Amino acid sequence: MRYELYYWPMIQGRGEYVRLALEEAGADYDDVARGPRGMAAMDRLMAGKGTKTPPFAPPFLVAGSRVIGQTANILFFLGARHGLAPKADAARLWVHQLQLTITDFVVEIHDTHHPLGPSLYYEDQKSEAKKRSADFRKARAPKFLDYFEGLLKASGGSYVTGRRLSYVDLSLFQIVAGLRYAFPKMMAQREPHYPRLVALYDRVADRPNIRAYLASDRRIPFNEEGIFRRYPALDG
Amino acid sequence: MRYELYYWPMIQGRGEYVRLALEEAGADYDDVARGPRGMAAMDRLMAGKGTKTPPFAPPFLVAGSRVIGQTANILFFLGARHGLAPKADAARLWVHQLQLTITDFVVEIHDTHHPLGPSLYYEDQKSEAKKRSADFRKARAPKFLDYFEGLLKASGGSYVTGRRLSYVDLSLFQIVAGLRYAFPKMMAQREPHYPRLVALYDRVADRPNIRAYLASDRRIPFNEEGIFRRYPALDG
Repeated sequence: MRYELYYWPMIQGRGEYVRLALEEAGADYDDVARGPRGMAAMDRLMAGKGTKTPPFAPPFLVAGSRVIGQTANILFFLGARHGLAPKADAARLWVHQLQLTITDFVVEIHDTHHPLGPSLYYEDQKSEAKKRSADFRKARAPKFLDYFEGLLKASGGSYVTGRRLSYVDLSLFQIVAGLRYAFPKMMAQREPHYPRLVALYDRVADRPNIRAYLASDRRIPFNEEGIFRRYPALDG
Repeated sequence: MRYELYYWPMIQGRGEYVRLALEEAGADYDDVARGPRGMAAMDRLMAGKGTKTPPFAPPFLVAGSRVIGQTANILFFLGARHGLAPKADAARLWVHQLQLTITDFVVEIHDTHHPLGPSLYYEDQKSEAKKRSADFRKARAPKFLDYFEGLLKASGGSYVTGRRLSYVDLSLFQIVAGLRYAFPKMMAQREPHYPRLVALYDRVADRPNIRAYLASDRRIPFNEEGIFRRYPALDG
């Protein structure tokens, strides 16, 4: 089956966690909104045309007759189908729980440049963004990164759940990549505290399917429209 | 089996979505942190003592040997066990997807009074909170409420998925209750647009187990430490 992924065509954003899973799995998929008439198709599904399960927002995945929204929910679905999550029920929910924690982290990363909400431009909330980012760099980012570093330490393997890769590892790769892009000064300073996260990043980047993906034009470059934005004023 | 729920003892917060599900199900549970030495027990589990799956933050549920975190993940687990979610895989993920959309809404509700992040007090971010709340009332809250009102309209039944109650209905009850508490002016003005959400609220409030819960001291009153806070300055 060929999947259809629907997401904003100009950014990595939340769609990237799904793209990384599809690419690692070698799944057949179409990044619909990047093609002709893709945005119109995305709008139709969000308006509930042709589906009884209209998503609130992208990303969403069409898999046969199903339309599945919410990044972590899509990964839950794909993980079971493509060997990117453990099979046992408890372990499957644990991995999902970690993905939901990453989801929380992503919201806070986004809010560093949009503390007053998504309706205003960054340019209209620069001083507030500076305040929120200071707290993010000092308190919030370390709290999340410490947590995942601790899990990697406890796992006894190369990946968060041990010896086998799961979609959470792919997402943590993206977190490290994105933080390096958006907060290069913070990361240069903090990375020595996170040797396992850095090693995980390298390990994921070196997987054949991921390496091929990152070198392709399917990987949209980081930019200042996405979640991770390089605004030096926010990096201290 | 007696469940143990761990959550901050003084607020409804994110724990309330779990409490409502446990109460509706008539499940046997202990709200641990509200009892003696409960906070110390919560801290131990979060520090990874006695579990290989330490949660990042409350709420979390102990069910036998399992420790399960993230509100929506806990509800996914409880929904399957207590008939609060459909059994078929696609419908189960759809209900979960809706809960994750409520999760996003809850973050935005919280951020109305904490736009600069969770580390600062409200008193230190009042002017920013006023700006964020204005956008919330004008754009964000209507977008979420319209979405759920539309789903109720399309469902053809009394509940979001049709004729049977799911945990999402309980959570939407809490959303309406909380918004009425925190934004009484906004809700008085907007509620005529949401007849189905209001009817759902009434229907849930009138279920025997929920009615008994709401009248008990197990239901913590709304207050200005939780997610939904009554700050008249933020209500326009």
